[in-house]
Amino acid sequence: MNDTKPKLNQIEKLKQLTFLDNLLGFKFLLKWLFICSIVGALSGTASAWFLMALNWATNFREQHLWIIAFLPLSGMLIIFFYEKLNKEASRGNNLIIEEIHQPKKKISFWMAPLIFVGTVATHLFGGSAGREGSAVQMGAALADETNSWLKLKKRDRRILLMCGVSAGFASLFGTPLAATLFALEVFLIGAIVYEAILPCLLAAVVAYWVCNLWDPGHSHYIIQNIPDLNVLNILIAVLAGIVFGLTGRLFANTNHFINNSFKQYIPNVYAQPVVGACMVICFLLIWGDTQYIGLGLDTIENAFHVQQPYYGFIIKILLTAITLGAGFKGGEVTPLFFIGATLGSALSGILPLPIDLLSGMGFVAVFTAAANTPLACILMGIELFGASSAVYIAISCVVAYLFSGHNGIYSSQKIGSAKH
Amino acid sequence: MNDTKPKLNQIEKLKQLTFLDNLLGFKFLLKWLFICSIVGALSGTASAWFLMALNWATNFREQHLWIIAFLPLSGMLIIFFYEKLNKEASRGNNLIIEEIHQPKKKISFWMAPLIFVGTVATHLFGGSAGREGSAVQMGAALADETNSWLKLKKRDRRILLMCGVSAGFASLFGTPLAATLFALEVFLIGAIVYEAILPCLLAAVVAYWVCNLWDPGHSHYIIQNIPDLNVLNILIAVLAGIVFGLTGRLFANTNHFINNSFKQYIPNVYAQPVVGACMVICFLLIWGDTQYIGLGLDTIENAFHVQQPYYGFIIKILLTAITLGAGFKGGEVTPLFFIGATLGSALSGILPLPIDLLSGMGFVAVFTAAANTPLACILMGIELFGASSAVYIAISCVVAYLFSGHNGIYSSQKIGSAKH
Repeated sequence: MNDTKPKLNQIEKLKQLTFLDNLLGFKFLLKWLFICSIVGALSGTASAWFLMALNWATNFREQHLWIIAFLPLSGMLIIFFYEKLNKEASRGNNLIIEEIHQPKKKISFWMAPLIFVGTVATHLFGGSAGREGSAVQMGAALADETNSWLKLKKRDRRILLMCGVSAGFASLFGTPLAATLFALEVFLIGAIVYEAILPCLLAAVVAYWVCNLWDPGHSHYIIQNIPDLNVLNILIAVLAGIVFGLTGRLFANTNHFINNSFKQYIPNVYAQPVVGACMVICFLLIWGDTQYIGLGLDTIENAFHVQQPYYGFIIKILLTAITLGAGFKGGEVTPLFFIGATLGSALSGILPLPIDLLSGMGFVAVFTAAANTPLACILMGIELFGASSAVYIAISCVVAYLFSGHNGIYSSQKIGSAKH
Repeated sequence: MNDTKPKLNQIEKLKQLTFLDNLLGFKFLLKWLFICSIVGALSGTASAWFLMALNWATNFREQHLWIIAFLPLSGMLIIFFYEKLNKEASRGNNLIIEEIHQPKKKISFWMAPLIFVGTVATHLFGGSAGREGSAVQMGAALADETNSWLKLKKRDRRILLMCGVSAGFASLFGTPLAATLFALEVFLIGAIVYEAILPCLLAAVVAYWVCNLWDPGHSHYIIQNIPDLNVLNILIAVLAGIVFGLTGRLFANTNHFINNSFKQYIPNVYAQPVVGACMVICFLLIWGDTQYIGLGLDTIENAFHVQQPYYGFIIKILLTAITLGAGFKGGEVTPLFFIGATLGSALSGILPLPIDLLSGMGFVAVFTAAANTPLACILMGIELFGASSAVYIAISCVVAYLFSGHNGIYSSQKIGSAKH
């Protein structure tokens, strides 16, 4: 990171500048307004189409459950196209995080269509996965593609990639502020630097607006019951935060473990998705219910009103780890929402806080723990649930962050400062 | 800062830990729950008494305007007590920021009563000043006082001071999340490190809760008219952000300039407040209205509904710079709210955004620019005005941050990364 940052004595000189400083600021603003408009428009459109395609895939699957029989075949095809077109793109978010840390080479444009089709196929044929990783990868790949003719300097390309991440996240979830912080937080644990804050915000806002023009529909959740703050409620929120933190850690560790196990015990890359798919199908035949595959948006929404079973989050962790570990495509965040919301909902049986508040806290706190992005998750909670539950959301997110260890779902994340 | 941070190879080791990592996290949590309860309770109580005293002082002054004739005398007494009891405490927030950067010695307990009485006197006798600096100084002084028997290590004392800042800010404004970010952001421009995020949040939440038990009453503001997001509105928000940024910079520069002028041209420290007070009194005699002295909370509230004159913010900048530069006590933030809200309100005459939205944007964005704390200000906007105006608030704050230069009201702030 140091090589892309101006040296400190140069920075100290900035303290002396006045008019020139404003002029440079204005140039910076105009440049990024222009670049972010392009990145935001491309990424917002991609996310909108992606959301519509996912809706279609989910509906089609639920109405034609026989299609799940083709899950093994679809997995092989996904691997085949990645192997043929751009194998490196299969490293997904980690590839982007590494490019932000240490720019090496342009991210292939193939990353965008591959992850689009791969994720829609995963959901169509019944895998358990998310979608934010896909939107982030499309955003970053499209952003880097614009750099083919923008030809930005090293430091600016780094900011451009962060804009792609921010734009993808913002348009997918309809949460521009959380997206801005996510792009700033995701590559470094425990620290952020603000040099990209304006570009990331602009890209996020434009992408959010463009995506909404296509009207793909974002999910909405409501927390109505917010108890007054007191010592007991603060301590319960802390306790819930610990549980959410350990759960986020369990998710990350299970993901890494199953992914490594697939690689170790099934050396043939085409056999991996077949075995993974068969495990998912076996589960479905035994369980007889599709609640735990796909995105699970209905279950997430339900968790805010109806107490969920205690085992639900474990099933979702396993199915998601198997789906992604076997080579299927998609993000981790919506499964994390599912895991957190259902766990929070279940905890309402023993913790004296309202079910909708606990579900909302779990929704963002388990994600915080797995991704190590507390500020993004607090803002996400505020953007999705409103400002009135913000203190509870913040306590559970920050405590969960403390208890999730120094490893998360993104193995390329570096540590900027220890958590304790 | 480096000497208080664990070395990087130690941090990398944390990636290997699992159970021990959780145990250390639990110890960290319990320790700071205990410490923050004390700091929060002390600081929250101090802020509540302080808010009540300020209310009393403001009401008394407005009903007995002859008291303003004693402004010069009160200034001399403030200086006298600082000179006799603890001269160093007069360096205020900068002293705390420097102790966080480079711990030297305990902050004197005298800082708390001196700033309490000094600020109440400033408001009672008609100076133009704020109150957050005072609450922050009380919080930090009380926190460091508890360290007399806690005897924390160097790194932990640094976090303790940040907790004091967070607790003071949270209880004063009733905004615990903004306070947490303010404590993390205020000593470094352009970067934050998360090691203190949990302690600062806990101290803020406890202080906020304890302060509310005393029921001192926090100000509330409402933004009702929030237009749909579109390209034009985004660009207007950017434009307003530039104006707010330059205004914040003007405030910081005017403050430094008038403060230096007092020191240069009036070497006698007792003559400084007399001259400053006479300037304020002259203004009041000519102007014939007390709208621009004190906290100005009524005017701030009014700005959200009634368009304010264009010159209002200039008068407030000058009166505040004279009051504080001459040696009177109080913070800068409430005047910054006043300046931003009245300027935003005035701008509604030429910019096609609703008056309440522009006032709210100015309220937090001018503060962002002067204090270089964008995330704290975005969260403050959300906590005070609700989540629905968050995108507009964020755009104006981040753009204002870009346009305020690399100097702010806190001259001890260091630069963590350049703004552009």
